[in-house]
Parts: sequence; structure tokens; C-alpha cells
Amino acid sequence: LTSKLPDVGTTIFSVMSALAQEHNAINLSQGFPNFPPDAQLIDRVSYYMREGYNQYAPMPGWPALRQALADKAALAYGQPVDWAEEVTITAGATQAIYCAIAATVRPGDEVILFEPAYDSYRPAVEVNGGIPVIYELRAPDYRVDWGMVESLITSATRMIIINTPHNPTGSTLKREDMLALQALTDGTDVLVLSDEVYEHLIYDGAAHQSALRFPGLRSRSFVTFSFGKTFHATGWKVGYCIAPPQLMAEFRKVHQYNTFSVHTPTQCALADYLRDPKHYEQLPAFYQAKRDLLLEQLEPSRFDALPCEGTYFCNFSYKSISKEPDTAFALRLIKEYGVAAIPVSAFYSSGKDEQVIRLCFAKTEGTLRAAAAALCRV
Amino acid sequence: LTSKLPDVGTTIFSVMSALAQEHNAINLSQGFPNFPPDAQLIDRVSYYMREGYNQYAPMPGWPALRQALADKAALAYGQPVDWAEEVTITAGATQAIYCAIAATVRPGDEVILFEPAYDSYRPAVEVNGGIPVIYELRAPDYRVDWGMVESLITSATRMIIINTPHNPTGSTLKREDMLALQALTDGTDVLVLSDEVYEHLIYDGAAHQSALRFPGLRSRSFVTFSFGKTFHATGWKVGYCIAPPQLMAEFRKVHQYNTFSVHTPTQCALADYLRDPKHYEQLPAFYQAKRDLLLEQLEPSRFDALPCEGTYFCNFSYKSISKEPDTAFALRLIKEYGVAAIPVSAFYSSGKDEQVIRLCFAKTEGTLRAAAAALCRV
Ligand SMILES: CSCCC(=O)C(=O)O
Ligand SMILES: CSCCC(=O)C(=O)O
Repeated sequence: LTSKLPDVGTTIFSVMSALAQEHNAINLSQGFPNFPPDAQLIDRVSYYMREGYNQYAPMPGWPALRQALADKAALAYGQPVDWAEEVTITAGATQAIYCAIAATVRPGDEVILFEPAYDSYRPAVEVNGGIPVIYELRAPDYRVDWGMVESLITSATRMIIINTPHNPTGSTLKREDMLALQALTDGTDVLVLSDEVYEHLIYDGAAHQSALRFPGLRSRSFVTFSFGKTFHATGWKVGYCIAPPQLMAEFRKVHQYNTFSVHTPTQCALADYLRDPKHYEQLPAFYQAKRDLLLEQLEPSRFDALPCEGTYFCNFSYKSISKEPDTAFALRLIKEYGVAAIPVSAFYSSGKDEQVIRLCFAKTEGTLRAAAAALCRV
Repeated sequence: LTSKLPDVGTTIFSVMSALAQEHNAINLSQGFPNFPPDAQLIDRVSYYMREGYNQYAPMPGWPALRQALADKAALAYGQPVDWAEEVTITAGATQAIYCAIAATVRPGDEVILFEPAYDSYRPAVEVNGGIPVIYELRAPDYRVDWGMVESLITSATRMIIINTPHNPTGSTLKREDMLALQALTDGTDVLVLSDEVYEHLIYDGAAHQSALRFPGLRSRSFVTFSFGKTFHATGWKVGYCIAPPQLMAEFRKVHQYNTFSVHTPTQCALADYLRDPKHYEQLPAFYQAKRDLLLEQLEPSRFDALPCEGTYFCNFSYKSISKEPDTAFALRLIKEYGVAAIPVSAFYSSGKDEQVIRLCFAKTEGTLRAAAAALCRV
């Protein structure tokens, strides 16, 4: 048996979380909150289980949940969304990303992606026979030069994958970026996959520039979202995708035979929970306070913070501390200082090392203070 | 955009369930129980949510659950199973089936499958570029002629998909079938995908002939299972796959980037629930009583029951009632008699029509009696 994905190893997230456990380190590596979802949301899931909502949901998702999401997106991004035809609930955003790629990328198709990148994009493209075309962004601000993107587009380009707010760098795409992408793809049949799982985690008063806002992008985009990130329940694995009807029809053909449907009682509970916009409107302030705490606590350290405009990750250069490769440095941080971080080279398929580590600040104040105290000793 | 799956429409299950609702018919079409999972199991899920088990599970699944499943399979099928390397929890058996195919089938590879068949096999093969090679089984007993299978194997054959107990026909593969398949694949590099989601739904004292029992199959097989079918919670979408380490390593490469992990609190709850073997040992008797009730109640009708050795489906020929195509007949059953069934032609890609309908008997006694009374009027 020769592998279809010979280069795939265990994800850096699993590796680092396992090491954190082994060394009893504070885990700021894998992105997940160490605090629970709202008890009210948990109670709703229990309620729907007890009330007998335990059989298959409709394949595209629970209607009330899709309606709530269509309304929410239309309100936020100023474009109508048809809940019946344009919204599908998925087993996490990761499954949405996979389905969008599997539904549209054929062997030999090129897919442009920006690195550092969330680690699923590339293998999802490859296992479907696509050819990743990689544009490496650089620290400290990881800006995209759209002229450079233009030069990467060929007649074989099937898709461009963007991610804003951006994991792992915490950067965001601006209105100008989205307009540039729109202009670039206008009149082509290049599709866009816009991973917006951190849509609510955006700081300093900035507005999230969803692909849904821009009609020329909207019409060619799969846009993916996550409840796990938004409601502190990464282990529930519920996300969704919004796409125009023709794209969504193809997406659903794969979804239908990939997982068919998603945890029914959780979908019902989320439909109720979304009725109160406070449940997500408070998120930017909630997470910004955590970001600011981490930055403030690390101010006296020898780490240099890179800009963090969104996500629950903040990156730090350690150039003034050490010349070690970032993986070696991250290992030493775990073993000698008891803090687990992700070396950002893990997000480049070339292994490009800019001597930057990523810290997840979706943690309680106590955890952030303890981690920062340890890091200040470095 | 040209479709990668031009022939895929809405599944017959969704179509029939929707029609059943529209016509307020008794729904014996889509396969799901109309009674709930054990309250004790529901309570465990709620417990783990409240106790804070809401973040990512390890990618291959919750260790205690995998351990329980490895022990259970080893005990039932007499072969050791390594929980760490050979068991992965999936978002339902459908996702397990998809991952096994995506991980191993390349464009141009041939995959032999038997029809009538569960409707995900063929599109999962096709979206991955594989070529389905279809062997049509015939009513009433749907037996496999392994000499015929042998004649379908070519140098391009990558996989054979079997399913026992078999949806939609209720037939099972016998020890001789498994030995024949083992002999046929011995010395080849043909893989086997054995869909055994109805492992516990087997009747009249028969023993389930899992691919795990046969060392020569075990070493080349992905074997998929379902908690939804076993514990009356089809909407929870939790299943699993057992495969030898080398195959499982490839499987996990796709799983990792397809969904990554599965609903954590449900995994924890299932690990507890499996500790008591009664929870599944009672299933054959429980469902056999339902099958027998349905058969007994339909005895005076003009429907002719086909053999039902397993699954929660029983098929009926209506040849002595009508010469209509099965889809027309099923539509008439909904509209005129208020009972929804699945026309078995929907499980053949050729649309082969043997004038057979499938009834799901995973229903309460009241529902089965009411459906049978209506069908006796036909
Ligand atoms: C699926 S584990 C990865 C979680 C995450 O999004 C991250 O740490 O970047
Ligand atoms: C995923 S809906 C199909 C349920 C089922 O297994 C069946 O009805 O055959």
C-alpha cells in the first residue's frame, strides 16, 4: 500500500498537547478554550436529548438552526442568505473545508493557498488530487501582495483558499484585500474558499471582512464557520458552510455521503441559543481582554509580540532570546519552563522558520498569568 | 461548474421521510428508531458536558472508548485488536466508509460493490476517482456467487465492499461466504471494506460473521460499525472503524483532515455505557421480536415477506398485488394507505426493479401494528 498522503504525520496540535500533558506544562499550543461553554447551552443540549431529538437531522441541517444562521449572516454582512439552499451544517468547519474541496477540486486542478496555514487545507487538496500552489507570507505582518497572487493564477487554478481572521498569525484581511481578490477573480471561474471560523474574534473595533459582504466574492465562495470556536466547545464538532445554491448543491452531494448529518440535539440547542445576539456580540470584548492581559503580562519578557488583530492566537518572536529553530525552542519551553506553544514553522509546508511561536490565549486569567510568569523567566 | 457527481440527487431516505411527513404517513422508510436511546446513556452525555468534557477529543478517539471497543471486538470475534493503533472513532459509520475509500482509492482504481447497496458507497468511490464495478444481487435471497466475483477482479481492483447484515435486503453473509472472499483475495493486494453497522441485529441464533474473525480478511479490511444503529441514536452520528495498523495509519490521515475528531461528551458516555455487555447483548432478541411482530401482522396481507436474517429492515414483494414499478407503488402506499416504505430499486444504480419494498421495523409495537393494519388493507 503506497500512501496517498505520504507527507502527513501526526498534527503538531496533537504532538504538542501530548507533550504538554507528559511534562505537566501549561498548554497554550492547540487552540481550544480551557473554560466551558455556557451552562445554558449545555442544558439545552441535554433538554433536546431528553425530549427525544436523537435521530437523523435533515441532511443539510436542522431548519431552525439554518434559518437563524441565514438571518445572522444577512444582518452582519448586508447580503441576503437563503437558509434552505445556501446553508449546510457540518461536522465542524474542518469537514466543511474538506467537502468544499472534495466537491470541486479534480486531479490536476491547482489550489492557491497562503502559508502559514491551518494544516488541513493542503492534505484536503492533495487527497482529492489537487495541486497546492503555495504563497508564503512573512512575519511580522503577513500581508498579501495581490499582484503576487495574480501571478500564481493559471488556467488550471480552481480555487483560492483564504482565512480571516487568520490562524496562526492573528492577522486579518482588510476591505482592500477583499476588493483586490474580487477584482482578481472577476470574470474567471476560480472559486474561493473563505475560512472564517474566527469571525467573532476580531479586536480593536475592526469589522470582520467576510467574503459574504462582497457580491463578486459571495457568488463564487464557500464560506466556513465554527460553533466550536465561537461558543467554547471545540469538542462538539459543529460548524457550517454558506455558499450560493449552485455551489452548495455540489457541496451537499459530498456532505451527504461523507457524514450525512450532524449531532441533532446540539443543532436544536444552538438554534435556541443563537436567538440572543448577546451570546456572540460579547465575544470580541471577552477575547480582547484575554489578548491584552497576555500582552501586558509578557511586556517585561524578552518575547516580542507580533500584531494580533483577531483569532485567539498571538505570535511572538524569540529572536532576542535564542537562535534555535522554533521546534527546538518550543520543546525547550515545555521542558524547562513548563509552557507549550506551537512553532509557527509547522504551518509552512516548506518548514520555513521565522523564529516565531504561537500562543493560544483562549484560557482563564489564572492560566494566562501563570504561563506569562513562566515565560518572563526565559 | 461541472459536477463531480452528476448523478447524485437527494437520497431516497430524505425524499421518503419528507413525503411521509407531508402525507402524515407512518414512516417505515428511512432507517431510524422511533424510540429513544436509554435514558442512562443520555444522562451520561449530559454528565460529561457538565463536567467539562467539551473540547477536542484526541484525533483517533477517546482512549477509554477505543479500549472498550477493542476488548469487545476481540471477545466477540476471537482476534486481538490493538486499541491504540487499530480503532478510530468517526462521525458515524458513513464517515468511516468515506475515509476508508478516500484513503486508499485512486483515480482509475476499480471497486467491486454489490447492489442493492447502501447509497453512499458508489458516490464515495466516484468522488475519489474510483470506478464502481457493480454486481447485482437478485431477490429473493440475494446470494453472492463468488465465482462471479472472481470474474470481476482485474489488475485495477483496489477494493471490494461488503455489508453484513445487509441493508437493504436483511440477508447475511455466512461463514462460507467469508471463507470464499478470503480465498479470493489471498495473495492479492485487494482491500476489503466490510460495513458491519448491523452487527448486533442478527436473528434466529445466527452468529455475525465479521471480517474480523478471519485472519486473511482481517489483515486487509477496514471494518465499520455504528453506535447510532446499536443504541437507537442515529442522530448522534458516532461510529468507528477497525483496521490493521498500516491501513489505519492511512485512514487516520484522511480522518484527521476530514473531521479531526468526534463529539467528546458522547464518546465519554459511550465508554461508560459499553462496560455493561447487556446493553448490546439484548439487541438481537429485542429486534427479533419486532421483526416477528411485523411478519405476523402482515401474514394475512397480500405482501410476500422475503427472508430477513438481520438489520432492522424487512423486504416484501408486492407482485401479487400490483405490476406497478416499485417507486409508483411506494408513492401510492404513502398517499392511499398512509405508510412510507423504500422502493428497493433505489438501491440499484441501474434502477433494477424487482417489485420489492423495504420496511423498517425499528419502531414501537404500536407503530408496527398500525402500519401493518394499513398494509393489510392493500
Ligand atoms: C483540530 S486541532 C487544531 C486546533 C486549532 O485550530 C489550532 O490549534 O490551530
Ligand atoms: C442516512 S439516512 C439512511 C438510513 C439508513 O441507513 C437507511 O434507511 O438505509
